Amino acid sequence: MFEATSTKRIFIQEVGPRDGFQIEDRFIPTADKIELIDALSLCGLAKIEVTSFTSPKAIPALADADAVMRGIRRQPGVVYTALVPNLRGAERALAAGTDELNLVMSASETHNLLNLRMTRDQSVARLLEVVDLAKGSGAALNVSLSTSFGCPMEGDVAEAEVLGLVERFLQQGVAGVILCDTTGMAHPRQVASLCRSFLERFPTAELTLHLHNTRGMGLANALAALEVGVVRFDASLGGLGGCPYAPGATGNVCTEDLVHMLQAEGHPVDVDLPRLLAAARSLPELVGHDVPGQVLHAGQSQDLHPVPASLEDIRARAQAQVQA
Amino acid sequence: MFEATSTKRIFIQEVGPRDGFQIEDRFIPTADKIELIDALSLCGLAKIEVTSFTSPKAIPALADADAVMRGIRRQPGVVYTALVPNLRGAERALAAGTDELNLVMSASETHNLLNLRMTRDQSVARLLEVVDLAKGSGAALNVSLSTSFGCPMEGDVAEAEVLGLVERFLQQGVAGVILCDTTGMAHPRQVASLCRSFLERFPTAELTLHLHNTRGMGLANALAALEVGVVRFDASLGGLGGCPYAPGATGNVCTEDLVHMLQAEGHPVDVDLPRLLAAARSLPELVGHDVPGQVLHAGQSQDLHPVPASLEDIRARAQAQVQA
Repeated sequence: MFEATSTKRIFIQEVGPRDGFQIEDRFIPTADKIELIDALSLCGLAKIEVTSFTSPKAIPALADADAVMRGIRRQPGVVYTALVPNLRGAERALAAGTDELNLVMSASETHNLLNLRMTRDQSVARLLEVVDLAKGSGAALNVSLSTSFGCPMEGDVAEAEVLGLVERFLQQGVAGVILCDTTGMAHPRQVASLCRSFLERFPTAELTLHLHNTRGMGLANALAALEVGVVRFDASLGGLGGCPYAPGATGNVCTEDLVHMLQAEGHPVDVDLPRLLAAARSLPELVGHDVPGQVLHAGQSQDLHPVPASLEDIRARAQAQVQA
Repeated sequence: MFEATSTKRIFIQEVGPRDGFQIEDRFIPTADKIELIDALSLCGLAKIEVTSFTSPKAIPALADADAVMRGIRRQPGVVYTALVPNLRGAERALAAGTDELNLVMSASETHNLLNLRMTRDQSVARLLEVVDLAKGSGAALNVSLSTSFGCPMEGDVAEAEVLGLVERFLQQGVAGVILCDTTGMAHPRQVASLCRSFLERFPTAELTLHLHNTRGMGLANALAALEVGVVRFDASLGGLGGCPYAPGATGNVCTEDLVHMLQAEGHPVDVDLPRLLAAARSLPELVGHDVPGQVLHAGQSQDLHPVPASLEDIRARAQAQVQA
């Protein structure tokens, strides 16, 4: 590990406009959302999660889902995805021209019941209705499995539970699955283990890893996944997002921090980092608070500081001491 | 990687009372410093950097170095170390009963000139005077090489430069070397490479890795080092510390976050994490501001949340829907 540079393309998938904005107290004006997404579209990201077609009552922050999806300027090569909780949301998403529907349920029964008010079996049935609807629409399908790396109430979730759910969706023609570390419980060895099991059992499925940095392990987890062959990563500009079970904790793994590390290591990530950082710099004003992204605060490793003019003076004095 | 659990003991070395406190604006009362260090002494840490025997003018925050070193209650098995910049500092440190002297210089010429007002050759000569003084004192010796993974003015520092400096100290009987990522420029592949080179060339030297989390890579870097055989890690309670070249950026890799990850992965780290977290919880009041440690904010992964009483109600309603 940490030796061979993979030549496989790494896909960076931005989820900030959905996963980040959905928990912001301040309503971000539709035009500002569109402007940010349009800026992100020029950064070389593989995918952008634009919004969530949920009930405006459930998530008022994304009540303008239709307008945002219709208002963005799409770039070729970028997949525009949206979260879709049910049939109604799927109809809205398809009508607005969404490229991909991101369906969601939890890998743990307790989290699914609390979050979606359904058993997991009910969720599977509901989501498969959406799968049927989407067939023939041309839209791609992804299923996000929350709490795949642990449930804040149940603790560990067995790999067999997660992979069993994955299989039910793949059998019905779903192409992609997103394993989500919803509350930042995953550690690198666990990430490597579950992702390896997934890729061995479902080699043709498109696996995305959705990491949070709640306990500081976000980038370590990404490297562990990369090591076993994962090439698709969700990430959130500025590290926006969060976890309702850990108020005050940092949120999703930060897009620009992830890209910065991968590029520093020499991995093939065709993302324009300076442009991405410029977009991230607009976030604090947009959301009304500082954001956790670290490269945003510290600058890139390669951004050198000017040598102070006093250096030659200091050197001369130091040398003089030797001769004295 | 991420598979075999090493059985080698991992040494966690706390540097917060020195590297963290030295940049705090508020003077932390001597009694509070001693109380914190005494609490840390009961956590299973291998080493604690207690203070710095520098000129009180240079670092007013640690002007009470002698009183702190003399005032702490030492626990068997814990090494009490202190930073020592020169002969005068070494004399003070030895008089106060310091177990180990931590000497410091930079791997990059520019950083050494700016930080220490000497060329690297001059620093080596000065530090070797301290080495001579310490011989026969019973005190152990460690040399910290700042900017070993990059200089904020020069950029990359060649491995040969770093290892050449290491060799000069080891040849003079210094037992330990600390490779410092002073400004958080290191990435995991680079860490693995330099540490592997070090361990191959100097298999009997005691290598410590001193990481910063400035750009979010702290824990990923620690795992990369562990993978190539590094077992000694500096870390700072609460993630205290910082980098003068990146104001507002996070500082040293956080002790409790590092321990949390390593223990979650099953590595042998005999640190009492709940006790460490209790000590970390005292920091915000002590330093007068929040600290970056993430487990402190989010809790341990294994700290489960109670299942709400409403769960059975929700389940019953969900089941009723099926039957209806």
